[in-house]
Amino acid sequence: MTGVASEEKQQQSFERLFNPRAIAIFGVNKAPYGGSYFLRCLQKANFPNPIYPVNPNLAGENLFGAKVLGSAADFPDTPPVDLAIVAVPAKACPSVLEDLGRARVPFVHIFTSGFSEVGNLELERKLVSVAREWGLRIVGPNCMGAYNPAARVVFADDLTDQSGHVAFISQSGGLAARLAINGASRGYFFSKIISVGNQADLNLNDFFRYFGTDPDTTVVSAYLENIKHNGKDLVSLLKDITPCKPVVIWKGGMSERGSRAVMSHTGGLAGNYRLWEAMARQTGATLVQSFDELTEMNHAFSTYPLPETLGVAVITAGGGQSVEATDACERLGLQVPELSQTAQDQLGRIFPDVNTNLQNPLDLGAMGLMADTYGKAIEVIGQEPEISSVIFVKDPERFPVYARNFGVENFMEVFVETTAKAVPPGKLVMSVAATLEEEETAALARFRFQELLQEKGIMSFKTIEAAAKVIYHMWTYRNYLDKRKKWELKK
Amino acid sequence: MTGVASEEKQQQSFERLFNPRAIAIFGVNKAPYGGSYFLRCLQKANFPNPIYPVNPNLAGENLFGAKVLGSAADFPDTPPVDLAIVAVPAKACPSVLEDLGRARVPFVHIFTSGFSEVGNLELERKLVSVAREWGLRIVGPNCMGAYNPAARVVFADDLTDQSGHVAFISQSGGLAARLAINGASRGYFFSKIISVGNQADLNLNDFFRYFGTDPDTTVVSAYLENIKHNGKDLVSLLKDITPCKPVVIWKGGMSERGSRAVMSHTGGLAGNYRLWEAMARQTGATLVQSFDELTEMNHAFSTYPLPETLGVAVITAGGGQSVEATDACERLGLQVPELSQTAQDQLGRIFPDVNTNLQNPLDLGAMGLMADTYGKAIEVIGQEPEISSVIFVKDPERFPVYARNFGVENFMEVFVETTAKAVPPGKLVMSVAATLEEEETAALARFRFQELLQEKGIMSFKTIEAAAKVIYHMWTYRNYLDKRKKWELKK
Repeated sequence: MTGVASEEKQQQSFERLFNPRAIAIFGVNKAPYGGSYFLRCLQKANFPNPIYPVNPNLAGENLFGAKVLGSAADFPDTPPVDLAIVAVPAKACPSVLEDLGRARVPFVHIFTSGFSEVGNLELERKLVSVAREWGLRIVGPNCMGAYNPAARVVFADDLTDQSGHVAFISQSGGLAARLAINGASRGYFFSKIISVGNQADLNLNDFFRYFGTDPDTTVVSAYLENIKHNGKDLVSLLKDITPCKPVVIWKGGMSERGSRAVMSHTGGLAGNYRLWEAMARQTGATLVQSFDELTEMNHAFSTYPLPETLGVAVITAGGGQSVEATDACERLGLQVPELSQTAQDQLGRIFPDVNTNLQNPLDLGAMGLMADTYGKAIEVIGQEPEISSVIFVKDPERFPVYARNFGVENFMEVFVETTAKAVPPGKLVMSVAATLEEEETAALARFRFQELLQEKGIMSFKTIEAAAKVIYHMWTYRNYLDKRKKWELKK
Repeated sequence: MTGVASEEKQQQSFERLFNPRAIAIFGVNKAPYGGSYFLRCLQKANFPNPIYPVNPNLAGENLFGAKVLGSAADFPDTPPVDLAIVAVPAKACPSVLEDLGRARVPFVHIFTSGFSEVGNLELERKLVSVAREWGLRIVGPNCMGAYNPAARVVFADDLTDQSGHVAFISQSGGLAARLAINGASRGYFFSKIISVGNQADLNLNDFFRYFGTDPDTTVVSAYLENIKHNGKDLVSLLKDITPCKPVVIWKGGMSERGSRAVMSHTGGLAGNYRLWEAMARQTGATLVQSFDELTEMNHAFSTYPLPETLGVAVITAGGGQSVEATDACERLGLQVPELSQTAQDQLGRIFPDVNTNLQNPLDLGAMGLMADTYGKAIEVIGQEPEISSVIFVKDPERFPVYARNFGVENFMEVFVETTAKAVPPGKLVMSVAATLEEEETAALARFRFQELLQEKGIMSFKTIEAAAKVIYHMWTYRNYLDKRKKWELKK
C-alpha cells in the first residue's frame, strides 16, 4: 500500500463514518419510508448518539419522537454530526450537500437513486463537484450506506447488534441486508458492512483498503457488479490483503444478460469472467458465484482452519450416498484417499458389521443409524495425516422415524455432542443434511439438527457439492499462501 | 427391439413379478428383521393376496399373524405363488431355489447379500445355474426387489400406495426407498420400482425393456453403478425408448474413489464419465449427477411440457437476485432474451415504479413484495414466443415479515393462486425459494409455500442453478427428439 500517512488519515476518517457521534437524516417525512425508514431503524437499534431529522417544511415539528430541524445550520455544535443520510429527491441533493458542506459534515450517505444508474450522469457529477468543493465524502448515491453492529449503526430494521469479524462491501443494498440477516441466522457475524451504490466518490477500493487493515475484520468479502475505478489498484490492494486475511468476491453480471441486469442496477459495465478468474488466481482472492456460496465462504473462513491437504474422508450410512458424495468430492477437485490399514483395523473393531465399508468413503450401513457412531468414526479418522477434512451425510428428516423410542431431541443431542467432541484440532468437519422428504415434521427436524450442529461450530450444507466446494476454495487459498511464501523467500 | 414374441412373453411374466397372486417369504423369524421385515411391510401396506412365511424350524407356528410353512412343498395350489422373497443365509440360498423350482415359482427376489459384491462369485454362479435348471428368474441377490403401489407390493414400511407414471430401476436398494419417499413428498408418484442388486440373472436391460413398453410408465429413470451385461444392448434399448418416453440416468461411481465405493457396494466395475456422456448424447437419455437432480428430473418430466426454446424469463424482486439468477441461467446454457417492446410497454403500465427493470431479467423491486404482481408479470410474459420458461425467485422466509398485516397464509395463498392462474399453456413456470434465514418460522413458511406451489403444479427449487439445469436438460431432450425426427425423415 502506498501513502501511509494519507492511508492512516483515511482509516481515521472512516472511523467517523462507522462510529458517528451524531447522525442527521435529510428527507424525513410523516410516512415511514425514505429518510424516516432510516430514522426508525436507528431508533429501533438503540443508536446511542443524537439523531437529527431534517426537513425545512416540517421544521420544529416532532416526528417519530424527534424534533425536526430546518437545515444543517440548525445542528447543535456538539456532538458533531459525522454522518448525514440523504433521502431527498435526486434534484435536491446538490443543494443539501452544500448545506452539509457548510456545516463541515465529513460523510454523506446518499440513499436517493436516479443518478448514473438511470443515465443521469450530469447530476451525479454535480454531486461530486460539490463534495470536492466542501471536502466532504459521499457514500453512494443509490445505496443503503453503513452497518456497524458495535455502534448500533444499521440500514435495515431487523439487523442484529452482535459483532463479528467479517466485513462486507456490496454494490447491492438489498444483498447487504440479506447477507447480514443470513450470516446472523447461521451464527457468524459482521464487523462492518458498507453498501457503496454508484460509487460517485468513495469506491470499492477505498473500502477494501480500509478493511484490509481494520483490526476488527479477519475476513473481507464483497459483492461487485462492476469496477468504476482503477482495476489495477484493486489487484494490488487484494495482493496486500490476502497474506493477512482471506478475501471472498462474488462478481455478479458475468453473463451477457447478467451484465445487462447490472447496467440497470448500478449503471456500470460488467467485466469478463475469465479476467476475474485470472485476477483471483493472481491475488489469492476466492471467487464465488452465488449468494449461498458467498455466505458459506464467509462462514467457513471465520469458523475453520485452512485444510493442509485435499484429502477428505466421507462418512455416510447407506450405499447410494457414499458413491454420490465421493463422486461430488472428486468432481470438485478433492481427493478421497484410502485410509491407512491401522485406521481400517481400528474402524473394523468398532464396526464389525458386514454391510459397512471402512476404506473411505466410509459407509456405516445400519451402524450409521445409531447416535454415536459418526463420532466414533471421526475420532479414528482424525489421526490420519492425509485427511484434513471430513464430510458426513445424515438425513435429519429420518430422525423422527428411526429415533422414535429414543426421542428425537435426545437422539440429535447425543449425535451432535459425540460428533463435535470427536472433531480433531486443526481439521474441518462438515455436515450435509440430505433432503429426503418434503414434509413439515421433517423440515423442523432438519432445522433443529442444523441449529445444534452450528452451536458446536459444525457447518451444515444443503448439498455435498456445496461442502466440497468450500473445502476446495479453502485449500486453494492455503496453497496460494504457501506458494507466495516460497516465492517471497526466493526474492 | 428383437424377438417380439419373446418380448411379449417377458412383458407378461414381469406382470407376475409386480402383481403376484401370492407371495412366499423365506427366512422369517421372530425378530422383525430380514424376511420378517418384508412380511410386516407387506401386511402394513395391505397386500391383498396370501403371504406365506416359510421357515422349516418354525413350521406350524404363528408369526406376525401368519402360519409358517416348512417349505415350498407346503404352498397351497391356488392362488399360485408368483414371487418368493428369500432372506435366508447366503449358503442356504441354492437349496431354497431348488425348493422353489420344484414348486414352479416363476420369480425369486433374493434379499440376502454376501455374493459377488464381497467376492463370492462361485456361490452366485451356483444360484444362476439352479435358476436356469428350474426355469425360474432371480431378482438380485443383494437387493430390495419390487415396489408396485397399485398392487400394494412394497419393500419398505413407509411407502405410499398412490400410483404414478415414473418407473425407477436401481442398483441401490436404499436409494430406491429414498426416491420413492422423496417423490411422494414432492407430489409425483411411481408406476413401479425395481431394486436389481447384483443382477445375477435379471439385469438392468431386462427392466429397461419392460418399462419401455409398460403402459403405466411415462418416464423411465435409473440409478446405475455398473453394467454387468452388454453395454451395446443398453444403448440400442435406450434408443428404442427415448422417442416415446424420457429416460433419466444417474450413473454413480464416476470418479476414481467413487468407483471403488461402487465395487464394495454392488461388486462391479464402474465406467468412464465421458463414455456415459457420449452415450447420453447418442441415445437422448438425460444424465444426472446427484439424488436431487434425479428426483427433480423425474418430477419435471412428469409435470411439465418440453420447452420449445432455450429462452427463459427471470423474475425477482431486488437487484442482487436478478443478476445472480441471470448469471446462473446463462452459465448453464439457457438464454435470457430481452422481451419485446410490446411486452415491456404492457409491463411498464402494470409496474410504473422507477426501481423496476422490465427488459428481462425482470426486477419487480418493491412491487415484488405484493402478492399478485408475479402473476401479473407471468401473464404478459406468457405471450412472448421466444420465452418457453419462467424462473421466479421468492424468499418465502420473508413472508412472516412483510405479510405481517395481511396474514402469512393468506398472502401465500393469494400469491400461489394468482401465479398458478397466470401460467400459460405449454410453458414451464418454476419457483426458487432462496434461503435467507436459517430460522424456525422461516423454515416453516418455506415448507408451506413449497407445498402450496406443488399443489398447483409449480415445482420449487432450492437454488436457481437447480431450476436452470432442469430446463436445460428438458430442452436438450426436446432438441434430441427434433433432430432424430429430421434424421429419420431423411432416411
